[in-house]
Amino acid sequence: MNPKFAERTKAARRSVIRELLKLTEQPHIISFAGGLPDPATFPREFLAKVAADEILNNPGKTLQYTTTEGKLPLREPLSRWFAEDGMNFPPDQIVVTSASQQGLDLIAKAFLDPGDAVLVGLPTYIGAIQAFQAMQAKLVGVPLEDDGMDLDALSAAIATTRREGHTPKFIYVVPDFQNPSGITWSEDKRRGLLEIASREDLVVVEDMPYRKLRFVGRSVPAVASLDTEGRVVVLFTLSKTLAAGLRLGALAGPKEIVEKIVTLKQATDLCTSSLTQRLAVRFFQEYDVPGHIRMICNHYRAKRDAMLDALDRHMPKEGISWTKPEGGLFLWVRFPEHLDTEQMLPRAIEHKVAYVIGAPFFVNGRGHNTMRLSFSSATVDQIEEGIHRLGLVVAEELASLRSPQRA
Amino acid sequence: MNPKFAERTKAARRSVIRELLKLTEQPHIISFAGGLPDPATFPREFLAKVAADEILNNPGKTLQYTTTEGKLPLREPLSRWFAEDGMNFPPDQIVVTSASQQGLDLIAKAFLDPGDAVLVGLPTYIGAIQAFQAMQAKLVGVPLEDDGMDLDALSAAIATTRREGHTPKFIYVVPDFQNPSGITWSEDKRRGLLEIASREDLVVVEDMPYRKLRFVGRSVPAVASLDTEGRVVVLFTLSKTLAAGLRLGALAGPKEIVEKIVTLKQATDLCTSSLTQRLAVRFFQEYDVPGHIRMICNHYRAKRDAMLDALDRHMPKEGISWTKPEGGLFLWVRFPEHLDTEQMLPRAIEHKVAYVIGAPFFVNGRGHNTMRLSFSSATVDQIEEGIHRLGLVVAEELASLRSPQRA
Repeated sequence: MNPKFAERTKAARRSVIRELLKLTEQPHIISFAGGLPDPATFPREFLAKVAADEILNNPGKTLQYTTTEGKLPLREPLSRWFAEDGMNFPPDQIVVTSASQQGLDLIAKAFLDPGDAVLVGLPTYIGAIQAFQAMQAKLVGVPLEDDGMDLDALSAAIATTRREGHTPKFIYVVPDFQNPSGITWSEDKRRGLLEIASREDLVVVEDMPYRKLRFVGRSVPAVASLDTEGRVVVLFTLSKTLAAGLRLGALAGPKEIVEKIVTLKQATDLCTSSLTQRLAVRFFQEYDVPGHIRMICNHYRAKRDAMLDALDRHMPKEGISWTKPEGGLFLWVRFPEHLDTEQMLPRAIEHKVAYVIGAPFFVNGRGHNTMRLSFSSATVDQIEEGIHRLGLVVAEELASLRSPQRA
Repeated sequence: MNPKFAERTKAARRSVIRELLKLTEQPHIISFAGGLPDPATFPREFLAKVAADEILNNPGKTLQYTTTEGKLPLREPLSRWFAEDGMNFPPDQIVVTSASQQGLDLIAKAFLDPGDAVLVGLPTYIGAIQAFQAMQAKLVGVPLEDDGMDLDALSAAIATTRREGHTPKFIYVVPDFQNPSGITWSEDKRRGLLEIASREDLVVVEDMPYRKLRFVGRSVPAVASLDTEGRVVVLFTLSKTLAAGLRLGALAGPKEIVEKIVTLKQATDLCTSSLTQRLAVRFFQEYDVPGHIRMICNHYRAKRDAMLDALDRHMPKEGISWTKPEGGLFLWVRFPEHLDTEQMLPRAIEHKVAYVIGAPFFVNGRGHNTMRLSFSSATVDQIEEGIHRLGLVVAEELASLRSPQRA
């Protein structure tokens, strides 16, 4: 038996990161590798109570199939949530998805023929890379600066892509506290992005998994809230604000696009779980959602502060810099060109500290001198100790790279 | 803004059936249209209890992300369940899916390049048609006889398909109580199918959503249990045996295929809900599953018997026949060629009874003289009354077709 897979399957690779994560699951390792939300932020007492109530007293709505577009009493509060943030998406322009990753899959299915191009940041979210590659897209990387994409480079990349015979379909961005870099785009760059998208007649896919998790600084308008032409599709998830294990998210956008997405979702999974949707309905109806989000922000801010403080004290400075995220779960460290974070990883594991290597987030084969640090899961004490260890690892690695005896 | 959709999206159509179902949702209509399981079969007291317990006392396993392949304590009982039924799929050859529809999507992604062919029954499950068409497959229909596919026609169709330049990738079958026809394949035809698949080196996709729901007659071995070459991929769902709203199913098959499927699933939705998986784990650990399935079978058998009995008494006989399913949720009625069930539908709605038209289940544009009747949702009394009405509708329609005054 010799299964004849599709072209897309031959090329599909599992996330290198997920494989590396297995390395970091040894005892006593302080891990900044995984990007998981802290389970302490999940409202389990509330969810336990409403789950029992819903299943027992509302079985027709929790245990039976539901509509492909998702339950209206969930799309309504999501619509209001978008509206409070300046985005005008009525419920019929919202599809409930099995979290953001399904939103990425559906967007890829809706737009990408083999060889079509997607513009993405350098670095960008690895789950997006996988979803777009699964539809055989050409991924074109555009450097990220500290305030968002290099827009001149974006324009140039679009022109080059067209010249090479590829059709650019959309620009994929994570403008708030990006995974992996922690970078937030300035309002100017968001407006500039829309100008380029308008000039080139491209869709913008704005992924905002962390937007509600701003700890410091002033909110920057969502790209979708600045859009006057209906060319922005928004992806949102409840994984960081309610619970990741429910697999709930939403895709919102222009009606024409949302209708196509609903049709494709029907063939993908018929509908998202009725039970988990009902739990989210009750969350929006009964829970102190703003207070809950303040709690989550306070929780992560303390950890982010601890990590920035520890980096200041323990990390060698020369040629090394890191981002100061105003929210989200991640920060990003850049090392001198000759330090390769993948080569350094065994040394880190030896010192019982773990991180994620940067290269898999780059679609242009670069980024070997970068790493992602997540501050979501470790405690404040573990962060202090772990960054202390990491500082020693980096100092040792730099010394070994200077030493002529290195193998 | 003029979104440039992918080719697959331009062709994607929503299920005609779902649109027609809206027609049937008027008050006082007795509907045999929807194919939903009866909520009375969902073990809600048990699920309510374990949901509260799991969320409160096991939040790290219910509210956090889980592995892409699915929780091992769920794959283990599924593996045993397959083994009891003669199928040898150890847990590492099983992926938990967001119900069968996701299994169909992943199979389509794994195997189908545009123009590749899939062999399907005439009629076949509409969700499979949608999933395969979303990957731009050419669907080749093979007539279903009362004991399974016409195997000579299958061989001929494969030959024709190759001659026309299409690569057949797999044969899709629902051998037990098929949706929509209710037909069950004989063991001979199952063995014959495997011989053809072996000779042609094709994968067989065996979809078995209803296999556990046999009411009468003797079980026929699953195609996968007869397979000695590792060429059968099995799709299973808990939608009919636990609860549809949980969106839980499984795909099992040869290791090489399952590994590719896991990789593709990672890009599709990262993982299926941890919460709903934990509910299923507890169901297998603590519930009287065999007793539960006996209860479901008794429940549906009474309804199926009522429908067959009512059809005998109320349906005109001449040129009309229907299947006598030994399990599942559906039976299938064939009318004389000149009766078009879509044209007849307004008359049925007028008489307050609804069915699903047969044509959308045919990939060759035929089946206009067929209909699917579901006996899962109506009560026994409603079945008697509804079939009585349907008999009148058919008699009227046949009379009007004979009448020279028809418009």
